[in-house]
Amino acid sequence: MIEKTIRMNYLYDFYQSLLTNKQNHYMKLYYLDDWSLGEISEHFDVSRQAVYDNIKRTEALLEEYERKLQLFLKYEQRQKHFNTLKVMVQENESPDRIVQIVGLLEELE
Amino acid sequence: MIEKTIRMNYLYDFYQSLLTNKQNHYMKLYYLDDWSLGEISEHFDVSRQAVYDNIKRTEALLEEYERKLQLFLKYEQRQKHFNTLKVMVQENESPDRIVQIVGLLEELE
Repeated sequence: MIEKTIRMNYLYDFYQSLLTNKQNHYMKLYYLDDWSLGEISEHFDVSRQAVYDNIKRTEALLEEYERKLQLFLKYEQRQKHFNTLKVMVQENESPDRIVQIVGLLEELE
Repeated sequence: MIEKTIRMNYLYDFYQSLLTNKQNHYMKLYYLDDWSLGEISEHFDVSRQAVYDNIKRTEALLEEYERKLQLFLKYEQRQKHFNTLKVMVQENESPDRIVQIVGLLEELE
């Protein structure tokens, strides 16, 4: 569950600009502000089921965007390369090997 | 015109997975394979105007995705930092300054 929450936070961060205002609002309250389904449904005066359905659909939509654009996956790969790069620079690795890692990073659009 | 073509090629590259099959097909023929509107309309047996309208709408959609996600803009910024980084490594700049540039890159999700 915590893993899913972390993933949804990332996906929401990457793709929130593609969501509608309502989708954005529910997701922000549920995932970022940690409101319960009950609190959201009470606040908007809609059924708990309606909030649940909306959030489930938005989660599926975010996964669909990730399947198509892979922004989160590429972000993770880049972070990994950045860490390798920093260690290599600090340890005074040969310029050729460092440039090789930069090349790998460049390929990750 | 050439500048627009280059930009559309990039935007198409970044966002093609978000387009419908038909939008994808027309854009590929027009921008990547350099077909004329007349050739596309003949091939699909639709009016030249219909092809033109479809491509114009798709161009606007790609610009809308770029306005929201800025993948092309961030790509350009990363490429610039990568080039700086490679020069710094080759010129044996101090590790601290190199890591500083890597930090800037990390911030560009």
